[in-house]
Amino acid sequence: METKGELRFIGTVEKAGEQEAKIRIFPEFCTGLRGIENFSHVITLYWIHLRDNEKDRRVLLVFPRKHSVNVEVGVFACRSPTRPNPIGLCVTELVKAEEDALTVRGLDALEGSPIIDIKPYLPRADSVPDAQAPKWTEHGPPT
Amino acid sequence: METKGELRFIGTVEKAGEQEAKIRIFPEFCTGLRGIENFSHVITLYWIHLRDNEKDRRVLLVFPRKHSVNVEVGVFACRSPTRPNPIGLCVTELVKAEEDALTVRGLDALEGSPIIDIKPYLPRADSVPDAQAPKWTEHGPPT
Repeated sequence: METKGELRFIGTVEKAGEQEAKIRIFPEFCTGLRGIENFSHVITLYWIHLRDNEKDRRVLLVFPRKHSVNVEVGVFACRSPTRPNPIGLCVTELVKAEEDALTVRGLDALEGSPIIDIKPYLPRADSVPDAQAPKWTEHGPPT
Repeated sequence: METKGELRFIGTVEKAGEQEAKIRIFPEFCTGLRGIENFSHVITLYWIHLRDNEKDRRVLLVFPRKHSVNVEVGVFACRSPTRPNPIGLCVTELVKAEEDALTVRGLDALEGSPIIDIKPYLPRADSVPDAQAPKWTEHGPPT
């Protein structure tokens, strides 16, 4: 069985900012955006390139500091950017769709982060308003 | 700038099934699950290994057939398994958490699909009940 997969970067965070960020899609992938303007929200998957190193990718336990919590939790039980595969996931509001760029609100990515996928947000599949999460997740930023 | 990233598989879909699926986490990553039992839902990211080939990864326009729609849309505007990076994303209910395995409900992955990440579902970040999506997404399976 294979143990690794190859990710291809499809774009980049051209301008960061939680309030408004600009995602530039590389020319060879722009056709894949057709119809995206019909969605109000998209799930943005990006590569947390600054954590793409052996040391960070071996970390399995963290203190989610942004939430000022003093509990050590597994990386799969929090949204830490340090994890075996440094994939960032943000549900973002789609402010503007251009032929080769998206302007989104709520993207917690740094400038220069590679984009690995864009998926439309489907409330009937993705929205679980009454999902239960521990108390510590209520403090600090959403993720 | 880098154009590719390396994904490491952290587990596998041992038993498929939308009603109940079993995810086996590889021994070297199990510590990362600590605390996950405190969440009712998790976001499961998996590798759609059967679409990991040159032909499928070049496709940018598809007819989302599961939704019986006759409109061609970009792969980033639908949840097609055929896309430049064959990453599957499912919001799943966490039925049972064991030391090296998760039983989940709602996982649309085939047996043997590699798992690439598990993220806790945080309603205040991930739930947007009133997100807008085009009419065709309301027919057929959720994704």
